[in-house]
Amino acid sequence: MAYPGGQLSEEKVFKDPVHRYIHVRDKVIWDLIGTKEFQRLRRIKQLGTTYLTFHGAEHSRFNHSLGVYEIIRRIIDDVFVGREHWDHSERLLCLCAALLHDLGHGPFSHSFEKVFRLDHEDFTQAIILGDTEVNAVLRRVSDDFPKKVAEVIAKTYPNKLVVSLISSQIDADRMDYLLRDAYYTGVSYGNFDMERILRVMRPREDQVVIKRSGMHAVEDYIMSRYQMYWQVYFHPVTRSAEVILTKILHRAKKLFEEGYEFQTKPVHFYSFFTGTVELQDYLQLDEAVILFYFQQWQHERDAILSDLCRRFVNRHLFKYVEFNPTNEQMTKLIELTGLFKKAGIDPEYYLVVDSSSDLPYDFYRPGEEGERLPIYLLMPNGELRELSRESVLVDAISGKRRTDHKLYFPADFIYDFSTKRTTKKKIIEILEG
Amino acid sequence: MAYPGGQLSEEKVFKDPVHRYIHVRDKVIWDLIGTKEFQRLRRIKQLGTTYLTFHGAEHSRFNHSLGVYEIIRRIIDDVFVGREHWDHSERLLCLCAALLHDLGHGPFSHSFEKVFRLDHEDFTQAIILGDTEVNAVLRRVSDDFPKKVAEVIAKTYPNKLVVSLISSQIDADRMDYLLRDAYYTGVSYGNFDMERILRVMRPREDQVVIKRSGMHAVEDYIMSRYQMYWQVYFHPVTRSAEVILTKILHRAKKLFEEGYEFQTKPVHFYSFFTGTVELQDYLQLDEAVILFYFQQWQHERDAILSDLCRRFVNRHLFKYVEFNPTNEQMTKLIELTGLFKKAGIDPEYYLVVDSSSDLPYDFYRPGEEGERLPIYLLMPNGELRELSRESVLVDAISGKRRTDHKLYFPADFIYDFSTKRTTKKKIIEILEG
Amino acid sequence: MAYPGGQLSEEKVFKDPVHRYIHVRDKVIWDLIGTKEFQRLRRIKQLGTTYLTFHGAEHSRFNHSLGVYEIIRRIIDDVFVGREHWDHSERLLCLCAALLHDLGHGPFSHSFEKVFRLDHEDFTQAIILGDTEVNAVLRRVSDDFPKKVAEVIAKTYPNKLVVSLISSQIDADRMDYLLRDAYYTGVSYGNFDMERILRVMRPREDQVVIKRSGMHAVEDYIMSRYQMYWQVYFHPVTRSAEVILTKILHRAKKLFEEGYEFQTKPVHFYSFFTGTVELQDYLQLDEAVILFYFQQWQHERDAILSDLCRRFVNRHLFKYVEFNPTNEQMTKLIELTGLFKKAGIDPEYYLVVDSSSDLPYDFYRPGEEGERLPIYLLMPNGELRELSRESVLVDAISGKRRTDHKLYFPADFIYDFSTKRTTKKKIIEILEG
Amino acid sequence: MAYPGGQLSEEKVFKDPVHRYIHVRDKVIWDLIGTKEFQRLRRIKQLGTTYLTFHGAEHSRFNHSLGVYEIIRRIIDDVFVGREHWDHSERLLCLCAALLHDLGHGPFSHSFEKVFRLDHEDFTQAIILGDTEVNAVLRRVSDDFPKKVAEVIAKTYPNKLVVSLISSQIDADRMDYLLRDAYYTGVSYGNFDMERILRVMRPREDQVVIKRSGMHAVEDYIMSRYQMYWQVYFHPVTRSAEVILTKILHRAKKLFEEGYEFQTKPVHFYSFFTGTVELQDYLQLDEAVILFYFQQWQHERDAILSDLCRRFVNRHLFKYVEFNPTNEQMTKLIELTGLFKKAGIDPEYYLVVDSSSDLPYDFYRPGEEGERLPIYLLMPNGELRELSRESVLVDAISGKRRTDHKLYFPADFIYDFSTKRTTKKKIIEILEG
Repeated sequence: MAYPGGQLSEEKVFKDPVHRYIHVRDKVIWDLIGTKEFQRLRRIKQLGTTYLTFHGAEHSRFNHSLGVYEIIRRIIDDVFVGREHWDHSERLLCLCAALLHDLGHGPFSHSFEKVFRLDHEDFTQAIILGDTEVNAVLRRVSDDFPKKVAEVIAKTYPNKLVVSLISSQIDADRMDYLLRDAYYTGVSYGNFDMERILRVMRPREDQVVIKRSGMHAVEDYIMSRYQMYWQVYFHPVTRSAEVILTKILHRAKKLFEEGYEFQTKPVHFYSFFTGTVELQDYLQLDEAVILFYFQQWQHERDAILSDLCRRFVNRHLFKYVEFNPTNEQMTKLIELTGLFKKAGIDPEYYLVVDSSSDLPYDFYRPGEEGERLPIYLLMPNGELRELSRESVLVDAISGKRRTDHKLYFPADFIYDFSTKRTTKKKIIEILEG
Repeated sequence: MAYPGGQLSEEKVFKDPVHRYIHVRDKVIWDLIGTKEFQRLRRIKQLGTTYLTFHGAEHSRFNHSLGVYEIIRRIIDDVFVGREHWDHSERLLCLCAALLHDLGHGPFSHSFEKVFRLDHEDFTQAIILGDTEVNAVLRRVSDDFPKKVAEVIAKTYPNKLVVSLISSQIDADRMDYLLRDAYYTGVSYGNFDMERILRVMRPREDQVVIKRSGMHAVEDYIMSRYQMYWQVYFHPVTRSAEVILTKILHRAKKLFEEGYEFQTKPVHFYSFFTGTVELQDYLQLDEAVILFYFQQWQHERDAILSDLCRRFVNRHLFKYVEFNPTNEQMTKLIELTGLFKKAGIDPEYYLVVDSSSDLPYDFYRPGEEGERLPIYLLMPNGELRELSRESVLVDAISGKRRTDHKLYFPADFIYDFSTKRTTKKKIIEILEG
Repeated sequence: MAYPGGQLSEEKVFKDPVHRYIHVRDKVIWDLIGTKEFQRLRRIKQLGTTYLTFHGAEHSRFNHSLGVYEIIRRIIDDVFVGREHWDHSERLLCLCAALLHDLGHGPFSHSFEKVFRLDHEDFTQAIILGDTEVNAVLRRVSDDFPKKVAEVIAKTYPNKLVVSLISSQIDADRMDYLLRDAYYTGVSYGNFDMERILRVMRPREDQVVIKRSGMHAVEDYIMSRYQMYWQVYFHPVTRSAEVILTKILHRAKKLFEEGYEFQTKPVHFYSFFTGTVELQDYLQLDEAVILFYFQQWQHERDAILSDLCRRFVNRHLFKYVEFNPTNEQMTKLIELTGLFKKAGIDPEYYLVVDSSSDLPYDFYRPGEEGERLPIYLLMPNGELRELSRESVLVDAISGKRRTDHKLYFPADFIYDFSTKRTTKKKIIEILEG
Repeated sequence: MAYPGGQLSEEKVFKDPVHRYIHVRDKVIWDLIGTKEFQRLRRIKQLGTTYLTFHGAEHSRFNHSLGVYEIIRRIIDDVFVGREHWDHSERLLCLCAALLHDLGHGPFSHSFEKVFRLDHEDFTQAIILGDTEVNAVLRRVSDDFPKKVAEVIAKTYPNKLVVSLISSQIDADRMDYLLRDAYYTGVSYGNFDMERILRVMRPREDQVVIKRSGMHAVEDYIMSRYQMYWQVYFHPVTRSAEVILTKILHRAKKLFEEGYEFQTKPVHFYSFFTGTVELQDYLQLDEAVILFYFQQWQHERDAILSDLCRRFVNRHLFKYVEFNPTNEQMTKLIELTGLFKKAGIDPEYYLVVDSSSDLPYDFYRPGEEGERLPIYLLMPNGELRELSRESVLVDAISGKRRTDHKLYFPADFIYDFSTKRTTKKKIIEILEG
């Protein structure tokens, strides 16, 4: 590598509550962390609106990105170095890809991307390849280095072993976020023995595999992931906040399209509303900016926008009931829609079905949507075996998609406010029914 | 208590990473948490700019406030209830004061209050006593309840035992922030055996005392506090960020006073600049708002304002050297000031001496500034003894103020940029000398 | 209660690494802990020979018994008190039964009981009901109190709710040993959120049930149990030590029966060899005594006894290979037996098949051996539902017995020693085959 | 190294609750662990009788020895390798010395050595240099290797850097025992950031020094040590057990000398009683053996021996009062002695003054007894500074010896038993006075 300075004169360390210390010896890593595009991740929460459910979860994507980097560094420097199948000249590439894999995330990206039909992965590519500080640092390694880093993150890089370190069913990304999100929320489910897993990872030609002796640690990791999804990531209160967030963005867009005159003009949103987002627009929109607008919009004349913003800012969320999309329930939903309209509550914004769905683990099912690389165990005789064929536990949940539907609505409007009495009664009957 | 509903029909729990669970059974507490003034604390970081040094420290004052409440609740419900000297009718008052003790904190309050000569304690009083949701909830207990809560926080409440639970040298506030800040930063120094301390706390007529058998746990707590101050709270990198923050606010104020035309007008700051802050102005200014302006101001024409904002947002902080205010050093500082001017770097914004000072523990020294209530040990024979008279460790550091001075400056301006060569050389000589 | 002194003048606490503190307020508990029969549990390891695999697992049954007591105390004092279905007059009975439930365990009880056809549960009954210090303490509560305590432990007590606290598929015993054994071995698998489980336990007429909202914590507990069984309790190295232990006891008994003249006479074992064990014989045999004999017997003239004792004391264990009881494997075993004899290695002591088997969770299957009380969830509508009908995870492993067979042998005898060359070759071929 | 096999074909790991994993790659280390002299450490508790105070503290010296080895391994392999002043050919020597440093410890060594005037360090030397399995393994490295290992442990090895790793005021031994004893007892005081300390250790010509930036971690370590001494190691209840243990040994020796006919003959003690201990005698005496005798001796005819043994085995310990060796107190002690005799309680065994004393840290004071190597900080300018000159905290406690005296006696004899009424009254007056 021609990178000027290659190694730092003295290793730098970050104190990290999850991995204890994060070690940086490579100047390029140090310089990447110092770029404004990477520092921007400090203003984007790792778990979006989850802090409204688990107050401890206020950590940022900056935090997580350093963690993923550190895991990869340990795998390479402590486990892979010197082993067959591992090409140590890929080391820096892996470290950079790990550090930058979430670079394109925007504010509250889950909802934001859905509303504006964007994909943070495109922006990750754009930042790495575009006219940015990150690109300038990467180019100092070599002209084609940004492209390689982008390819690893996009999973198109030829060396699939490298790709699988960053994205697979047991990659550094998942390991860090499970541990980190468990730490910050305070739930104990996310814990598993990462140190053990790292020790039993082995490089193979086109992917990372796990020594059979570490199977139980992997089982535990899969169970942790399963529990974190349902206990934390899909928590109905968090989804309520996401629903409101989504509706705010929809409403603002609609008002903008209708020529509504904002008191606080959505300058930062223009290009999003019109579908003409440039990289620089995107980079300027972090969660501080979003929160600034939401706070201002509490005072807009439009009743729906201001109400939704007040709900979000002050955490007056929607309540929910179970909702299974059966014919019967769909009929009730249609009836409710009518009743809401009658009561003067716009169902477009105030009656929302939200679904969450997770596939805890799956082996390869050719031809199916979302084919996923399975986890392979390296047996004592050198053979590879797909995890669910060895593990009773994993087999039990493999390929079993679980889905949960809930119906969200503003309980306060219905119970507290003076809507017409009979309408109110009927609504309550259906919701509590 | 006349509070409607008194107790919740089912206890609510918050998952908390430090205390595991935070338990709420009283409706008034639940309602206070739901007020917009309390929810606002989610947008104010507990440790201000510390996250720029310790990336884990992204937690908010909301987080900490719940923790202080929970500690007080445990002291009262698990240890004090039924003991002599403890008047259980003060329970709810203590819980509310604990929950609300930091309510008046503003964004980055340390620097903010210094620049605008404000005191967050005044705002805590104003929120509790003014026309707010918090006040409305408290009044539902009784007409004079808000006043009582405000008095406990202001330390003027007649029952000094109650006051000492919230503010003393070993109060719930300190215990929570040491444990919490240690948890989020990941440093191990802040740990001490809080459970043990709670168990040996005893109510006395005018203060909380500690059973002699728990002295070692208290020693450990005092050492933790000492270490956290110097390792975390006064970390020179954090202070560098505070210095820049302070200078941004100064610059913006000066530009405003000079009639400078801002591209992004500091609407939210007007009343702060003119010294006419009303409660509503104050409540609207959280850290999202501050960060919004700083991001915008990166693009202002004023070179100093935009440079400082870029430094803060992208974490390009000032470097520092040791600086002891001796005659010799003061002479050098004056010389440096001249050299900076010569080099075209405004010393008013780019050459800053910052001092930190802490008194780890002190007993009462009448007539001295900042008299502090000592910690008393309850001896087996029923007598009280001031802590430092029993503990060799505490005696050793008691009353010993430690102060640290550093000189901050933009190293990049001096080393990287092309200032005049001889001036640059002289500056470097002094700084490195 | 007529117990003199009822409550201690001041609560006593034990520092415990798992539950932090163990609290004792009842004088009867304090006095029970002080009896010689309870103190004897300090000389019996909780995990028998597991310390030869996991060096951290050196903790005693004393340790665990205090833990079970503390869990029951928390369930009763923090969760059950005042709830419907809970009869608080059963409190002391529960605490005593919890504390004493393992009282009859002997040294290395797993193997010991098998060899001498004893059952520690009989001895628990005998100690509680016999002429012991424990009985004297219990009788001070009331004449029939020892009987009641014995019934709770024997699961014959009429109040099945009380029985289920101590023995069920989610009882205080299991919760303590999983957490404690995980702590001392250092494996992370055994962790689950016990605090959460305690909070969602509810008394019902004839058993403890779990609120539906705590289902995920219970799932995690079941997975922990599953992992601990296979990772720790059934670890093949531990089983190797158990195999040797068993063979030592068999050999000593056989020698005794054959009139062999011991250099160190097995005085403490006489009644065990002859099947005439009295309570006092049993109580005198703890692990220090066993180890004393094993150390002495290293120097016996009988080659098998001295070899096996040396193996146990110095941890020169048997090696193992997988062994599945198929026809083919059985044929090989018979062949091996012949070859061992030929090589002069007595297969009765040196060729051992050992099997482990576990049923991670099961619902009630009437008429089957070992009927087990299922775990019931208390649904929001008040109805009870068996756990595996709600939990995908538990359903997946419910009723699925897993069994593992291994063949143990002294590798050193075969590989290192000069047995006849062709015999040796054949043995190795079969074992490695 | 000529050691056959040098490295293991696959690294072995031990699960350790304190360091998570202990890694062994060197065949010599693996073989040493397998020797019977090293396995014997499993039967010697790390903290002697402390388990009678802190029930969690049942861990053995085997446990701790592995820990010290692992710390040294990490210092060398992760921090020292490749640095100036560090001669990597000393690596294996350091590892072996670390592993074996406590090899000569006997059962309950503190009291045992005092009574029989032995020194475990002599036995460590004897085991390493004598006709043992350990010596045989070490000799396979080179003929003079056992001698070198013995010298490092005896602190006479020429390379003082190597010596200081194993024995200094901040060595691997202390770091492991503080962390380990804290873990097993469950007290939180013993925790400090070992990972940080390891990272800032630097080799210098004749000792290990600590980078100035790690000073706070060292302060924390010194405070931990201070607290552990007074909270755990010198706990008065533990000392009570030691007092009884000492008196048992004294009594048995005296009875032996007087020709008393033991029912259970103290065969294993003969050479200790007569001062003719050979290495093999010593190695046969572990804690299982001692406990075996104590249990048997409960039934001896000699009332004092049987009483003391019952006290030890069943944990009926002596009570204590503060005792300061002033003239006044000494007079009272003499008076008590007379009264005890009068009451028929032999003061030689039942009235014991026990003192504990610790010097938390000290710098070098030439000419004084027990000169101790100070801890040196490596300043940024390369200079070394003695720790207490930089640290206010350490300076405060440096060289300050703290001593504590207690008077132990059998409260039950005095309060419960029917000694003469006036004598009893006088005794109680003095003790409670």
